[in-house]
Amino acid sequence: MDQPKLMIKKRQTLADQLYGQILEQIVSNLLKQGERLPSEHQIATGFGVSRPVVREALRKLQEDGLVEARRGVGSFVRRRPPEKLIEFATAGSVAGLMRAMEARMVVEHATARMAALRAGPKDIARIESTLAELEASMQARTPSVEADYMFHRAIAEASGNPVFAGMLDSTRSEVEQSIDVAQKLTREGSQERIDTVLREHRQILEAIKSGDSEAAAVSMSYHLLQARQRVTDHSRNT
Amino acid sequence: MDQPKLMIKKRQTLADQLYGQILEQIVSNLLKQGERLPSEHQIATGFGVSRPVVREALRKLQEDGLVEARRGVGSFVRRRPPEKLIEFATAGSVAGLMRAMEARMVVEHATARMAALRAGPKDIARIESTLAELEASMQARTPSVEADYMFHRAIAEASGNPVFAGMLDSTRSEVEQSIDVAQKLTREGSQERIDTVLREHRQILEAIKSGDSEAAAVSMSYHLLQARQRVTDHSRNT
Amino acid sequence: MDQPKLMIKKRQTLADQLYGQILEQIVSNLLKQGERLPSEHQIATGFGVSRPVVREALRKLQEDGLVEARRGVGSFVRRRPPEKLIEFATAGSVAGLMRAMEARMVVEHATARMAALRAGPKDIARIESTLAELEASMQARTPSVEADYMFHRAIAEASGNPVFAGMLDSTRSEVEQSIDVAQKLTREGSQERIDTVLREHRQILEAIKSGDSEAAAVSMSYHLLQARQRVTDHSRNT
Amino acid sequence: MDQPKLMIKKRQTLADQLYGQILEQIVSNLLKQGERLPSEHQIATGFGVSRPVVREALRKLQEDGLVEARRGVGSFVRRRPPEKLIEFATAGSVAGLMRAMEARMVVEHATARMAALRAGPKDIARIESTLAELEASMQARTPSVEADYMFHRAIAEASGNPVFAGMLDSTRSEVEQSIDVAQKLTREGSQERIDTVLREHRQILEAIKSGDSEAAAVSMSYHLLQARQRVTDHSRNT
Repeated sequence: MDQPKLMIKKRQTLADQLYGQILEQIVSNLLKQGERLPSEHQIATGFGVSRPVVREALRKLQEDGLVEARRGVGSFVRRRPPEKLIEFATAGSVAGLMRAMEARMVVEHATARMAALRAGPKDIARIESTLAELEASMQARTPSVEADYMFHRAIAEASGNPVFAGMLDSTRSEVEQSIDVAQKLTREGSQERIDTVLREHRQILEAIKSGDSEAAAVSMSYHLLQARQRVTDHSRNT
Repeated sequence: MDQPKLMIKKRQTLADQLYGQILEQIVSNLLKQGERLPSEHQIATGFGVSRPVVREALRKLQEDGLVEARRGVGSFVRRRPPEKLIEFATAGSVAGLMRAMEARMVVEHATARMAALRAGPKDIARIESTLAELEASMQARTPSVEADYMFHRAIAEASGNPVFAGMLDSTRSEVEQSIDVAQKLTREGSQERIDTVLREHRQILEAIKSGDSEAAAVSMSYHLLQARQRVTDHSRNT
Repeated sequence: MDQPKLMIKKRQTLADQLYGQILEQIVSNLLKQGERLPSEHQIATGFGVSRPVVREALRKLQEDGLVEARRGVGSFVRRRPPEKLIEFATAGSVAGLMRAMEARMVVEHATARMAALRAGPKDIARIESTLAELEASMQARTPSVEADYMFHRAIAEASGNPVFAGMLDSTRSEVEQSIDVAQKLTREGSQERIDTVLREHRQILEAIKSGDSEAAAVSMSYHLLQARQRVTDHSRNT
Repeated sequence: MDQPKLMIKKRQTLADQLYGQILEQIVSNLLKQGERLPSEHQIATGFGVSRPVVREALRKLQEDGLVEARRGVGSFVRRRPPEKLIEFATAGSVAGLMRAMEARMVVEHATARMAALRAGPKDIARIESTLAELEASMQARTPSVEADYMFHRAIAEASGNPVFAGMLDSTRSEVEQSIDVAQKLTREGSQERIDTVLREHRQILEAIKSGDSEAAAVSMSYHLLQARQRVTDHSRNT
């Protein structure tokens, strides 16, 4: 997993670095839930960056559900991620992981929908076998990042459009790192959380198997949103 | 609840009547899961209706997840609804309930998204109080159809566009009957199912409160899909 | 057309009245394109309303493309609607028309998509005949609001789900008034604009006829967005 | 442009080859508009491929709007692409171009929506300058594939999520080939068609500039659907 970290670093903008530093203060509870962040001006001065950079970092923290903007008042900490988050990922790479999640929500909503309409018996068998592998590894508390990735990739292949699988592959290192972090957090969690994660995967498979394109698309979106929340909310234990 | 049944009856087409009769045979296990339905020609002759009517009924059964079409082979029973379904609703009205669910999926995906962007403190308070009422009634195993409806209506109002609340109201009798059936099936079910239904409602509220429009929209779609599945799948117990 | 105006009035909130008054100043060029609006505080004091009411009115003007918010600076006039707009509608009813348009975008995106998948020969014939009527009336410069409404309603019926047609009907007065305003503005316009409006309708029909659900949904959304822009942008002449 | 063709060849499945051969017969008018295609069995025997391969090729031709399936009757030619299509692309590569278009519709709907919410002044300037370049090249009847690609890529960058630009780049050769074919067909066309194509691009830019995320997303989807139709419908001249 060294290479992925490298690739993400390469893409790290000033705003993402600032994102990481604010995130670190939230995770370490220096900035407490509900607390007001310093003003844009103070942040810009404190970190030696321009106002647009501050705004971009705050916007992303807001989109990722960590910070809340109240018009005319300022930004407040909304949610504290689990402490382990910045043990499993460097704080600086979390913004990159979130971007990968966002792109997956767009692409995989579509691949799940198309897979429900187009998957043949071989596609279904491939999705099923990757899920069986993922399940075995999770129940043994040695979750396989590769099995998880291959499950999502098998759905992309089942979409009947090879361009989608190519798109996933082009961002594979970020996707795998986001899976890696989520899986490690799940492994530390309760059996109930493991069951929840597996149930979400099975719902996607079931919807594809039964040719229900809307259910497949919604189940996929729901799974990815839940995964994002498991990564960003320390109070969630399922 | 007499009036609603009347209204739905008024709208009952030949195809919906045929839908109800096939449904009855599936629920009563005369047509078993996995079994092939008679051919379009046989159904048309047997029930004395035209081929287009048969096709429409089969298409709706397929869209509702009860029947599966295999190209060039025929239609097969995919899922058996709980027996209680046609105790709580007349078989003839189930097609109408499903149409109400489909329309709600379209409208409420939008109202949840907009509510996350536009809800003010009063809107949030109203959604919260309807949910508290629903929760109390469900835990007491006397689920309130009205509280459930008012929860969804409060979200429509929070969308900032009164036209949506008007649209929900215009189909209120069908919506309430679909809630009524789902609630009665849940009441008969496990405590786990009650917890699941309430968790789905809370997720929608949380997403709206935190201003996350995508999470609000997806959580609403997911909830309505799960509700539909609870109504149509006898093997589901959560 | 008196009754519809009445119904909309009944629903007119303080925010919508304020919306109408600001709109009037934009249309009459008292507030010029690019000019900054008074502050929230000044508007609240000037019109004797609370700050939340001002914020709601400004948010709606922004969503309708008439005003632009620049963070930390204020709100600016973005677009001036045609002067005739407040001749054909009362200023106070424009917010209501825009809400009807927004709701239609949600519902009719879905009805067009479903119609492409489910319309039978009779449905297609009905859509075609309403379009022929609309076309004749527009070419004669006596545009028929009813034919326009019936075109959209025929698509809702072709969706195979009667609940959608019921929803449209429940807001028929607002929908017809929005069509009425758009049609009157078009009638005053160039032959090119008439051709554009008719081409948009034909594209929807063609997509439904050829069973292309994505093209049908996108063509409908595009048509409704263009209609909204024709109503709100005085510089547009096609 | 040799490399792209090579890459697409590498990915060419049996179904895509069959797609190309049927397409060739439609373009050359051996199979006329409205005419019934041979049965699945006849095609399988005639081309020496399995039934699933035939079904996949027919499904894709249907999704691309070239063929129409009538349940229980067979498949019919729906639309004849311009003859030049298989002069500008090899018949075998057209299925690949269509797949690239389909993936772009998913990804660029999202990038346009996000760009409207997040684009800064530099992003807008970049989109504007690529559009100016595209416009100059098209008016001179020497359309620049690169300027067209860079316009779409600049929007992806303006989404604030670098993963999307990476995804576009990962399929750049297919995207550029699809642009190349569309542009060559446009260049051969009327001045009106050139104006139409440029107007579609400008509408996307305007929606992004005015921060209207829904209009941006819909304008992008509409543009890509129109582009697909210009490539597949010989009777279209605008």
